[in-house]
Amino acid sequence: MMNENDFLKPGERFDDLQIGNCKVIQNPERFCFGIDAVLLSDFARVKDKETVLDLGTGTGIIPILMDAKAKGSNFTALEIQTENVDMARRSVAFNGQKERIKIIEGDIKEATKLFGLASFHVITTNPPYMTNQHGLQNMDMPKAIARHELLCSLEDVIRESAGLLKENGRFYMVHRPFRLAEIFVLMSKYHIEPKRMRLVYPYADKEPNMVLIEGLKGGRPRITVEAPLIVYKEPNVYHEEISRIYGFERN
Amino acid sequence: MMNENDFLKPGERFDDLQIGNCKVIQNPERFCFGIDAVLLSDFARVKDKETVLDLGTGTGIIPILMDAKAKGSNFTALEIQTENVDMARRSVAFNGQKERIKIIEGDIKEATKLFGLASFHVITTNPPYMTNQHGLQNMDMPKAIARHELLCSLEDVIRESAGLLKENGRFYMVHRPFRLAEIFVLMSKYHIEPKRMRLVYPYADKEPNMVLIEGLKGGRPRITVEAPLIVYKEPNVYHEEISRIYGFERN
Repeated sequence: MMNENDFLKPGERFDDLQIGNCKVIQNPERFCFGIDAVLLSDFARVKDKETVLDLGTGTGIIPILMDAKAKGSNFTALEIQTENVDMARRSVAFNGQKERIKIIEGDIKEATKLFGLASFHVITTNPPYMTNQHGLQNMDMPKAIARHELLCSLEDVIRESAGLLKENGRFYMVHRPFRLAEIFVLMSKYHIEPKRMRLVYPYADKEPNMVLIEGLKGGRPRITVEAPLIVYKEPNVYHEEISRIYGFERN
Repeated sequence: MMNENDFLKPGERFDDLQIGNCKVIQNPERFCFGIDAVLLSDFARVKDKETVLDLGTGTGIIPILMDAKAKGSNFTALEIQTENVDMARRSVAFNGQKERIKIIEGDIKEATKLFGLASFHVITTNPPYMTNQHGLQNMDMPKAIARHELLCSLEDVIRESAGLLKENGRFYMVHRPFRLAEIFVLMSKYHIEPKRMRLVYPYADKEPNMVLIEGLKGGRPRITVEAPLIVYKEPNVYHEEISRIYGFERN
């Protein structure tokens, strides 16, 4: 048994992912992953032998979870913040996933140059949601970069994804519903046709606060909007589907 | 009291709209309005004195309902099928709505020429949903024209709406979710920004089968996706909101 403390730096902790003994290193002073990443890792469909790229991976949560769920077999993850790259690499090492997950330090805006055109079957991404510096009272940069389009815009993410995907490759993104029209317009502009969408509602009678989207490079227009994904039955009680996704049923 | 039979031609019947004693003449051999039109008439927001145009009004159901609910004060409705125009005019006369609802025979594709640029505050439309002749086994033309894009396309509807709307005018449409990406792309192309959307799910655990959309002529990108509208609690039992919209609570 490895000693967890050998993998941690000051201020960091391990969070248990409830699957295959996988854990992820996070620093609560920095951006920590949320339900968004967990839902996207479940929503994305990946077949054996497909190559998967996660754009803006943060602490590596999406490929770590997808690999643990045996989705695909060859993950690459791109991240611009050095400290996140370092945490993600240590998590991957701790989990014994080094053969299958490569963490690369670099800029989403340069991703097609970095990896080459048409080099992946699948792209996953949980990009910054906010367009501007609204709500950026204090310049807490690691969190701000994860939440606001400071270093890359939605158009950068979609344009680079279009370059990186093979023909008929699939694009998976989680985002905020208030950006939905822009998302569809940009996907269409770069020929990633929206094919599947699911809205995530905190409660059955509330506005959705997340949207999960699948696009098909070079696809024809026709989208399937799936049944609503409702998080809470009542305060503090998850719907069964959320418990399944989080793996609580396995415990 | 008027005699209903004086208003009906062979094969036709009156359907009670459950509001203000309003009725609509329909012929079950032709296309009859569905829940789509009823939900759109509730979703659309119209202020006093605004001018409202309904594109492809069929039997006039949307302006008849909106006027009965006292929304707006000046409705125009455009319809291409002569028999529908005739039925709509007799319904409007029967309901005493002739001062407020004008039924015009004409082609959506020519609507801007017909009415003039920037001539309405609000447009409502429940256009044909299907792109091609798929499922058109028998050429039952009145129904086919209502359901399939035989005489006008989604792009025709949105292009003409953009021409007809005043700046900051509002566009309300009910459609099928599988066309959602196309709808947003076309609205954006013609500068009617999607601002509000609601998905209609037959049951809480099923895929949605309708989408209600509000657009703003010349608006900036940011859409509010509303709480889900769920039609049935259980078979044959409507959710309270649907009962309210249909007016069942008033009886």
